[in-house]
Amino acid sequence: MSTPMNLQSFIAGRWIGAEPAAALRSAIDGRVVAHTHAEAIDFAEAVDFARVAGLRGLLALDFQQRAQRLKALAKYLLEHKEALYAASVPTGATRSDAWIDIEGGIGTLFAYASLGAGELPSGNVLHEGPAMPLGKGGGFAGTHILVPRRGLAVHINAFNFPVWGLLEKFAPSFLAGLPCIGKPATATSYLTEALVRLIDASGLLPAGSLQLVIGGTGDLLDRLDGRDVVTFTGSADTAAKLRVHPNLVRQSVPFNAEADSLNGAVLADDVTPDDEEFELFVREVAREMTVKAGQKCTAIRRALVPRRHLDAVAERLRARLGRIVVGDPALEGVKMGPLASHAQQADVAERVARLREHAELVCGGGTDVMPVGAGTEHGAFFAPTLLLSRDPWRDAAVHDLEAFGPVSTLMPFDSMDEAVELLARGRGSLVASLVTRSPKVAAQVVPAMAALHGRLHVLDRVSAKESTGHGSPLPPLKHGGPGRAGGGEELGGLRAVRHLLQRAAVQGSPTMLAAITGEHVRGADVIETEVHPFRRHFEDLRVGESLLTHRRTVTEADIVAFGGISGDFFYMHFDEVAARETQFGQRIAHGYFVLSAAAGLFVSPAPGPVLANYGLDTLRFVKPVAIGDTIRARLTCKRRIDRNRVDPSGVGQGVVAWDVEVTNQHGELVASYDILTLVAKRGDAERVD
Amino acid sequence: MSTPMNLQSFIAGRWIGAEPAAALRSAIDGRVVAHTHAEAIDFAEAVDFARVAGLRGLLALDFQQRAQRLKALAKYLLEHKEALYAASVPTGATRSDAWIDIEGGIGTLFAYASLGAGELPSGNVLHEGPAMPLGKGGGFAGTHILVPRRGLAVHINAFNFPVWGLLEKFAPSFLAGLPCIGKPATATSYLTEALVRLIDASGLLPAGSLQLVIGGTGDLLDRLDGRDVVTFTGSADTAAKLRVHPNLVRQSVPFNAEADSLNGAVLADDVTPDDEEFELFVREVAREMTVKAGQKCTAIRRALVPRRHLDAVAERLRARLGRIVVGDPALEGVKMGPLASHAQQADVAERVARLREHAELVCGGGTDVMPVGAGTEHGAFFAPTLLLSRDPWRDAAVHDLEAFGPVSTLMPFDSMDEAVELLARGRGSLVASLVTRSPKVAAQVVPAMAALHGRLHVLDRVSAKESTGHGSPLPPLKHGGPGRAGGGEELGGLRAVRHLLQRAAVQGSPTMLAAITGEHVRGADVIETEVHPFRRHFEDLRVGESLLTHRRTVTEADIVAFGGISGDFFYMHFDEVAARETQFGQRIAHGYFVLSAAAGLFVSPAPGPVLANYGLDTLRFVKPVAIGDTIRARLTCKRRIDRNRVDPSGVGQGVVAWDVEVTNQHGELVASYDILTLVAKRGDAERVD
Repeated sequence: MSTPMNLQSFIAGRWIGAEPAAALRSAIDGRVVAHTHAEAIDFAEAVDFARVAGLRGLLALDFQQRAQRLKALAKYLLEHKEALYAASVPTGATRSDAWIDIEGGIGTLFAYASLGAGELPSGNVLHEGPAMPLGKGGGFAGTHILVPRRGLAVHINAFNFPVWGLLEKFAPSFLAGLPCIGKPATATSYLTEALVRLIDASGLLPAGSLQLVIGGTGDLLDRLDGRDVVTFTGSADTAAKLRVHPNLVRQSVPFNAEADSLNGAVLADDVTPDDEEFELFVREVAREMTVKAGQKCTAIRRALVPRRHLDAVAERLRARLGRIVVGDPALEGVKMGPLASHAQQADVAERVARLREHAELVCGGGTDVMPVGAGTEHGAFFAPTLLLSRDPWRDAAVHDLEAFGPVSTLMPFDSMDEAVELLARGRGSLVASLVTRSPKVAAQVVPAMAALHGRLHVLDRVSAKESTGHGSPLPPLKHGGPGRAGGGEELGGLRAVRHLLQRAAVQGSPTMLAAITGEHVRGADVIETEVHPFRRHFEDLRVGESLLTHRRTVTEADIVAFGGISGDFFYMHFDEVAARETQFGQRIAHGYFVLSAAAGLFVSPAPGPVLANYGLDTLRFVKPVAIGDTIRARLTCKRRIDRNRVDPSGVGQGVVAWDVEVTNQHGELVASYDILTLVAKRGDAERVD
Repeated sequence: MSTPMNLQSFIAGRWIGAEPAAALRSAIDGRVVAHTHAEAIDFAEAVDFARVAGLRGLLALDFQQRAQRLKALAKYLLEHKEALYAASVPTGATRSDAWIDIEGGIGTLFAYASLGAGELPSGNVLHEGPAMPLGKGGGFAGTHILVPRRGLAVHINAFNFPVWGLLEKFAPSFLAGLPCIGKPATATSYLTEALVRLIDASGLLPAGSLQLVIGGTGDLLDRLDGRDVVTFTGSADTAAKLRVHPNLVRQSVPFNAEADSLNGAVLADDVTPDDEEFELFVREVAREMTVKAGQKCTAIRRALVPRRHLDAVAERLRARLGRIVVGDPALEGVKMGPLASHAQQADVAERVARLREHAELVCGGGTDVMPVGAGTEHGAFFAPTLLLSRDPWRDAAVHDLEAFGPVSTLMPFDSMDEAVELLARGRGSLVASLVTRSPKVAAQVVPAMAALHGRLHVLDRVSAKESTGHGSPLPPLKHGGPGRAGGGEELGGLRAVRHLLQRAAVQGSPTMLAAITGEHVRGADVIETEVHPFRRHFEDLRVGESLLTHRRTVTEADIVAFGGISGDFFYMHFDEVAARETQFGQRIAHGYFVLSAAAGLFVSPAPGPVLANYGLDTLRFVKPVAIGDTIRARLTCKRRIDRNRVDPSGVGQGVVAWDVEVTNQHGELVASYDILTLVAKRGDAERVD
């Protein structure tokens, strides 16, 4: 990368920009590595492209199909990851820093692909049931659906994770059917541009799924409305400014902010210096200070320790930080690179100076770090800097002022309640760690901490072996915290997808609700055919196809035989004396017998398309079945999910959930549940209706 | 109510105010019925009282106990409802209008009491599981908890539902452990004051649970922080103003808005004038125009009909509206009262004038309605007013300007796609109705409508018999819509409680997660005692108490016998030829046999504290069990919920969920599920540990 690149925006399917504008410099040696472009972006065109072409392409696919595309994209990016590592070099990230950004981002795509395939329906309506009756006659019921918003998402990102930052927002947005416009922070936008070029080259996404803005957002936000979403990752100040954008406010455009915050780690008072946990605390603080040169929204900014351990912790941290080699990450042995830009370096220096008005300096403190490597004297380096605040109750700055670099402040507390209270002075953060050996301490402290911290990381010798660390957001867990941290929610598994869909309550007759949700709803019209529904291939089976079985009278002999085979001789089934004393007044059949007999009523014994019953959900024994009662079952196709998969033997298959109602001779419901099956496909294109 | 009342605020446990300030007038005859108070409220004291006394009292109770208090309060208010009906008279509400407000509000308390008792845990940590492993070794896992925010809620309400408006927000807030400060709209605050006086007199709530502000909010909002919540119901303009309040923005205080909107109803093009649905549409529009004199955020403001039916619908509506008797609701036969105030009357008149710049007048249109009853010439009456917009594509005002009274505009469309598009011109609404006979039309149109409307009401001859109507928010269904409607979410069953709690991700060893969530987590340490856990009373049973059963070898005879007793002769169990062709390569045991045999392994046959197994959740058959495999089960107490209930025989009981893991001779999991039981209490105070 000897001549600077000219970066381009990706708008309406075209790469735009030829005229260089702002120069972007390497964090390592100050060389110019890229220029932004001078050409103005036509945001009317960008928004229109998202709304028309983007939505058309995204909604031509269903949830399952979009999950498949995400997986294919993740594989493609993994194959081409070295291009991203190469583009990452000027950011100053070490290989392991870049791993977090690049493979962490690709891993997030894989995670959402898998969540989508495992938990989202075919179609574009996500039924958030169960449907519930809203009257006694069964003609009026209600439920909720989640649907694509039919708007677009604008994702405004920070400089520190140019790849992960975009992908962790893009993945759930894409699943949710939202065309995205990504706007990375300019300082490291060359890396995001490299990512979007790969995505474009993959050809895997429908046109308009993702556009890229290099430079400012112009009048983009003025063009949004209530169908759209804006997400922001960055400083609390910028978040506050965006939040009051007049058009976003007027149109109630959902705005999700994830802001840096004064995250803390607490060494609980049960831990002694001889415990493994003591060293785990020191290691975690040092690691969070130096990974990505401390440029993480989740880094530990405040390290809280029992007063009696203050000096010991300070000493161990100073020693550990002293061993960190700072310099050009390309060199062997370098553990920490520079900050991402010279502007960032100046900002951190200024904030450290302000923090030092109250806090003592334990080590580091400035830019005179003497990094190893050629040209690094022109780089944006900063020394790992540990401060110590002896009176954190008076020192407001340590709870409020964030130096976004390898900087942390140590402070003492006298009780665990005090520790929680000191943490709370940060007015809301993304994450807090508690290092303790004691489940009792965790049970007492964590729920109180949880009111103000988005994620709680409990570290002990057991979890340490596999812990992904204080600073790592994970796809299945919520990322985002209240107050100072912006009040937003990202990730958290499918929660992120749900946040990006629109929820609506739906009321009507069960038949209408079934038609709208695409799932059978109790009380809806069913389809009764000559063919047993278990004999229908996946393609042929319709939601609502139903079988009302023959009947079976439950006898004393059944109970006796079932006790013998199961070994279950519970008094309710076998002890007439005790059973008379119960609310039922007599022996009743085993619940598991009712379940097993129901299977016997509805099973179709010969080999057929139903390959396996792999589970059962929400079983309720509604009424007891007594000796002499006659039961029957109704089995109705409730939900069909086409995962577009093929089983090991080469047969395509889908997932089918069946609603089962077991009733007695009075028509009363005695047991109710869903069974989950895999159903083979015919595999040819024809569909029988 | 002959002499005007002096209204008082309820702050820090005291009723404040003696000096009269603004006069509030009867909507019916203009008499002064109450005065607000001149004394300033010390909001520092109010906030402090909520944060200290309020939180202490609320968090001394757990979710289940708060649900009990809500139920008791609902019963108390129902017994004293006539006081509320009496206080409601000056608002101009008819008895049935007041029923919606008063009994609708009390019903919402009952609904949340029931939801809380049925679905929330004992304790103050709501585990939003399942916990999931975050590593392969089993030492690090993650999950989510929802906890009280340890802040307060400010609820700012509209004038139209002085009782329901407060109670529908108070109920979920109270369950969530949030002290509330209620600020009703001044015009009808005398009714909310009457409600809060009853609540105070009931003595059922901890001090500080609910405070009342009569008059302005002063510097209240400046005193909030990220732990707190503000909700607002009222006009979109005021919502937009509050949303940018500098302190709320700076502190990321969650702000939930529910604004009036231009809700629509669509007569689908499948309905003919001879269909029952045609008349249902007319009736629904007329009803929504006149209930509460049209002063509902959810009222139908736009009635969309196929162009060919435009005149017929206009005619039927005119006839129906012409029969509405307007006047003093105390008089027999009066179907519609006045608007809630003279200010409201002037506002509606002005907006109707602006709407008429483009739309024709079908009927009504002004204040010259000649209401029946003495003194009504001084009341705030307005005629039921139907407008007709022949070209709704050009007439922007009908989609944007809301006359908050008995006013609706009829408009034509030419296709269902056009109807959806016209509805969307309202830029987001609380609710839309679709009147259709066709599930196919509903399935096509409703998901598209759902992107911009908070609730969809599908009306046909089936649902009409029990439908609660277009305009009625219900506790189990989401209330709130995107865009113009404010972008908020209220109600929706437990969703409202979840919104008012704080969600945090928690990571750590399974033992730590179990301690924090109060629920057993797979892989956590278990407690093995001499006593079978099924022989422990509810009070004595601890989460984590566990039984590892003896073993059982599954034989061909078991399969044969189980087939005989269940009637399930599926080929996978009985057809050696076909079974060889499957992925398992051999006959396997019935899944339901494994389940039944597991029960036989862990059951404790004699009568004991475990009263009934009433259900089973999330059963997964993880691996097949073949002939010759040897299974055993581990049963672990997972969750205990004390519903503070007593069964019909007088024995107290609690709900206990048990985690069941069935493993084979290799220690591999073959089946996994939760069973749900009722467990008797000892009933004395002592607890064995």
